[in-house]
Amino acid sequence: MKVDGKHFRSIWFNQDTGRVQIIDQRWLPHEFRVVDLVTRADFAASIRDMWVRGAPLIGATAAFAIAEEMKHDASDTNLDEAWEELNQTRPTAINLRWALNEMRDMLRDIDVQDRAAMAHKKALEINDEDVECNRMIGVHGLEIIKKIAARKKPGEVVNILTHCNAGWLATVDWGTATSPMYHAVQAGIPVHIWVDETRPRNQGALLTSWEMNSHDIPHHLIVDNAGGHLMQHGQVDLVIVGTDRTTAHGDVCNKIGTYLKALAAKDNNVPFYVALPSPTIDWTVRDGVAEIPIEERDDNEVTHVQGKLPDGSIGSVQISPDGTPGANPAFDVTPGRLVTGLITERGVCAASPEGLAKLFPERVQG
Amino acid sequence: MKVDGKHFRSIWFNQDTGRVQIIDQRWLPHEFRVVDLVTRADFAASIRDMWVRGAPLIGATAAFAIAEEMKHDASDTNLDEAWEELNQTRPTAINLRWALNEMRDMLRDIDVQDRAAMAHKKALEINDEDVECNRMIGVHGLEIIKKIAARKKPGEVVNILTHCNAGWLATVDWGTATSPMYHAVQAGIPVHIWVDETRPRNQGALLTSWEMNSHDIPHHLIVDNAGGHLMQHGQVDLVIVGTDRTTAHGDVCNKIGTYLKALAAKDNNVPFYVALPSPTIDWTVRDGVAEIPIEERDDNEVTHVQGKLPDGSIGSVQISPDGTPGANPAFDVTPGRLVTGLITERGVCAASPEGLAKLFPERVQG
Repeated sequence: MKVDGKHFRSIWFNQDTGRVQIIDQRWLPHEFRVVDLVTRADFAASIRDMWVRGAPLIGATAAFAIAEEMKHDASDTNLDEAWEELNQTRPTAINLRWALNEMRDMLRDIDVQDRAAMAHKKALEINDEDVECNRMIGVHGLEIIKKIAARKKPGEVVNILTHCNAGWLATVDWGTATSPMYHAVQAGIPVHIWVDETRPRNQGALLTSWEMNSHDIPHHLIVDNAGGHLMQHGQVDLVIVGTDRTTAHGDVCNKIGTYLKALAAKDNNVPFYVALPSPTIDWTVRDGVAEIPIEERDDNEVTHVQGKLPDGSIGSVQISPDGTPGANPAFDVTPGRLVTGLITERGVCAASPEGLAKLFPERVQG
Repeated sequence: MKVDGKHFRSIWFNQDTGRVQIIDQRWLPHEFRVVDLVTRADFAASIRDMWVRGAPLIGATAAFAIAEEMKHDASDTNLDEAWEELNQTRPTAINLRWALNEMRDMLRDIDVQDRAAMAHKKALEINDEDVECNRMIGVHGLEIIKKIAARKKPGEVVNILTHCNAGWLATVDWGTATSPMYHAVQAGIPVHIWVDETRPRNQGALLTSWEMNSHDIPHHLIVDNAGGHLMQHGQVDLVIVGTDRTTAHGDVCNKIGTYLKALAAKDNNVPFYVALPSPTIDWTVRDGVAEIPIEERDDNEVTHVQGKLPDGSIGSVQISPDGTPGANPAFDVTPGRLVTGLITERGVCAASPEGLAKLFPERVQG
């Protein structure tokens, strides 16, 4: 999508320098920094320390990591070691393991001397596929927004609430939850976005707001507490969020707090959609609440808040008293029963075993 | 309750100086400051700008404001002007209007020369009554905690989640939601408190955590997004919150985000209690969602976060990009259907017209 009017992806291979480059998202929205990823340690740190984040982008980054690794040592040993190290960087996003497996499974079957070239090609393909998946999510999601707009008076905005950043910054391009929004804007439908700030890391405030600003999309930043009240008062027409892992039964693991918004949507008859490229589906898991391990992050993220200081530098403030510990589960699971539909690259389906089976019959085990 | 082991109320009349003093809560937990309130403007600012906050404490402060006002001009005109100015400081807390009416109704009927003395006496009574109400809320709430503790193994903690600060800092003493917690600790029941940070103003992080620290009560600070996940995993035994206004039908207006926690509690069969002294009940209102006006505060509270800088000074960071507007509804309404019970000074009742009528038969209009 656009940064100062110029097209960017969130990760790309720079043909001139022969290096993978990313937008280092730790500095957004206050600074726009592009950095090279060279060593395996660079790639691992970029995922673990959230220079890049978002399930699809994590997968795309891991694919490039394996490709770059193959350029200097294409042995089975190195392939396995790289797989292991990268797989441990973030526990929740299933796309990470999916991309690592895609790369390894393909590379195992070919000669060592061919691996570097093939891995490079495959990583580019995985990146392009993510863009195409997300574009198609936008095409299908646009139909949902069109139907809501059709029930409104001409010119009346469609109010969409989103949580965290499932924007183009969380993917290679387009975003998942944001793709229908960008498509709606391109189709001339007036939208207004309620952006959940998404504590503790404030991805909504920092990233989704920045995306909306960059594309001149009307939006308001709200605290995570506010969505229920807005829904009670008819100020939300639909919710669209992303996901880090979706189960075969349609349960959705996403940024902590998503579950609360789904409950509020249900209580107020507001449609609640989850946008996802199919690599986000973990076909091995059924009951998300019981089976998905939830990443527990540093409590410093809870006790402190980072942002821009009055002098323009980036700093953080401590909000809690000295001695108060924090607890920091990073994700929660929204049961499929609370989800109106899953928006995938193949279309929209119910968040249920049957719904997913209809769209992905090849994945259903007989 | 206690500050560094010494007993404090949140507001008191200092006999030595003849002045009303408060804890200026804007600096907690990082600094403990006591200030005098002298002029009507002082009192109005202390409520409007949240040097004091919490429905019961706002009422107690307003009572003292009228009392001090009577000492230099006890005329009807001044009484009415003071009533008007103070009534406009905060729109949601019904206790404010209740305390102002209690004072004015009493003063109207007595001679101007007697008003100063009578107003002073009445303000002290309103303060003492608040303390006694809250103590009784603790006595009744303790029974609920005892029953939960009785189902646990010996020594196993009772996990209580609370939102915002309905602590002693929100009242004259004891607090509403915290009174059962303090009583449980005094009764030797091991409790652990999940403290919602309560964006945008972080009263949980700043004030409730500070109260828990001051009384050595085990607790963890969590983001407002986390409670649903904790409930899904059996880590919350009950929720107790306060309220700024309760309707005659049992709907509960409280700090924004309370509704989301009530939905999660319902979805996970976690008991959800609301603690309130009866002046918090607005007998003129029935449907809280439709009838209670919600205070919309400055969006600066959403786009910025205040806390302690690394050098120990108090400062704020901007979390959003320049140009992103915020929306800041300060309260929401939890329908009575989601509330397990109301804990009042007279006992616990259902959050329904019938439940309230049983405890407060004198208020039921025939």
